[in-house]
Amino acid sequence: MQQVIQITTDRQNGLYDITKKIEAIVSKSNIKTGIVNVYAQGATAGIMIQENWDQSVQNDVITLLRKLIPSGIWEHDAQDNNGDAHLKAGIVGPSETIPIIHGKMGLSTWQNIFFCEFDGPRDKRDIVVTILDSK
Amino acid sequence: MQQVIQITTDRQNGLYDITKKIEAIVSKSNIKTGIVNVYAQGATAGIMIQENWDQSVQNDVITLLRKLIPSGIWEHDAQDNNGDAHLKAGIVGPSETIPIIHGKMGLSTWQNIFFCEFDGPRDKRDIVVTILDSK
Amino acid sequence: MQQVIQITTDRQNGLYDITKKIEAIVSKSNIKTGIVNVYAQGATAGIMIQENWDQSVQNDVITLLRKLIPSGIWEHDAQDNNGDAHLKAGIVGPSETIPIIHGKMGLSTWQNIFFCEFDGPRDKRDIVVTILDSK
Repeated sequence: MQQVIQITTDRQNGLYDITKKIEAIVSKSNIKTGIVNVYAQGATAGIMIQENWDQSVQNDVITLLRKLIPSGIWEHDAQDNNGDAHLKAGIVGPSETIPIIHGKMGLSTWQNIFFCEFDGPRDKRDIVVTILDSK
Repeated sequence: MQQVIQITTDRQNGLYDITKKIEAIVSKSNIKTGIVNVYAQGATAGIMIQENWDQSVQNDVITLLRKLIPSGIWEHDAQDNNGDAHLKAGIVGPSETIPIIHGKMGLSTWQNIFFCEFDGPRDKRDIVVTILDSK
Repeated sequence: MQQVIQITTDRQNGLYDITKKIEAIVSKSNIKTGIVNVYAQGATAGIMIQENWDQSVQNDVITLLRKLIPSGIWEHDAQDNNGDAHLKAGIVGPSETIPIIHGKMGLSTWQNIFFCEFDGPRDKRDIVVTILDSK
């Protein structure tokens, strides 16, 4: 089973919790044991598993990436001035693969799935959700 | 096939080689061609493929992450003082997916699978191992 | 379906676009909906999804990793002087898993698949490509 979901992003850099959208697709699939692959289309975005107790860790992720990968100093900036966005996307990576256990995602209490926007805001970001049965 | 394994961690930050535990599950599955997904439950831990010739690379991983992501300077520290652990977990990521070739994991000579503890010690850490047949 | 491909690398650090090789295997598999796992064997290499408009982002990836993970300062360097290569490989990770949609990889316009060499040049690097049907 496969489904593409869309989200809108309202900041240049930001994390967006998509856990409930993915959980709904897993539930609909009726697969009890397997994996779900969550894949962000777009070379300036990524997927990260992270805590969602409050906004603090999400802010810290943005702060960390801005510190490690400052904007405005990259060769690619001569093209379209978003070299830092590509580098953040490359380090975070476009996908995560999560086990399905007894028909639900095997996330721990504090693990949520975030779409990471590094070059927003964007009207539409596509995320491909693919579910496989391990039988 | 899916199985959850447990490990105990004895340090705040440390890498623990779980290759043999995973290999045993792959062997038991009798699947000859496919993939195995190794997923760490817990938002302050991760899975990394890394060399295990001796302890040196494992120490270097901890040294590197401490340097890139120092403790005590994050917004999340106001909650429970482990902002660095979440950030390390987010960058390393909770899972790796490894091919199964002729019934064994397709790791190269120096590739081992490590559970990365960033907020230990912990009595119990759960790792979900899911195997899929590619036929 | 599974296939191992080989590439030659001509630099110590470099990104090599392997998208077309992977696309050919996906096409040959005849699988319409599923995932493809691309796995680099070797503890000093990785796989990254990144833009390939021109060489600039690839150069920036190497520059960034050299800056974050300098060579010559690691405990492992006492063994074989490539501690930085192992650390880069660990952070980038050995694999990416990409959805297959209507028989083609679900990459966006600017997403390409790169083999990342961190300890070259090498005559032969093996990459395992495993395709799974999600039905």
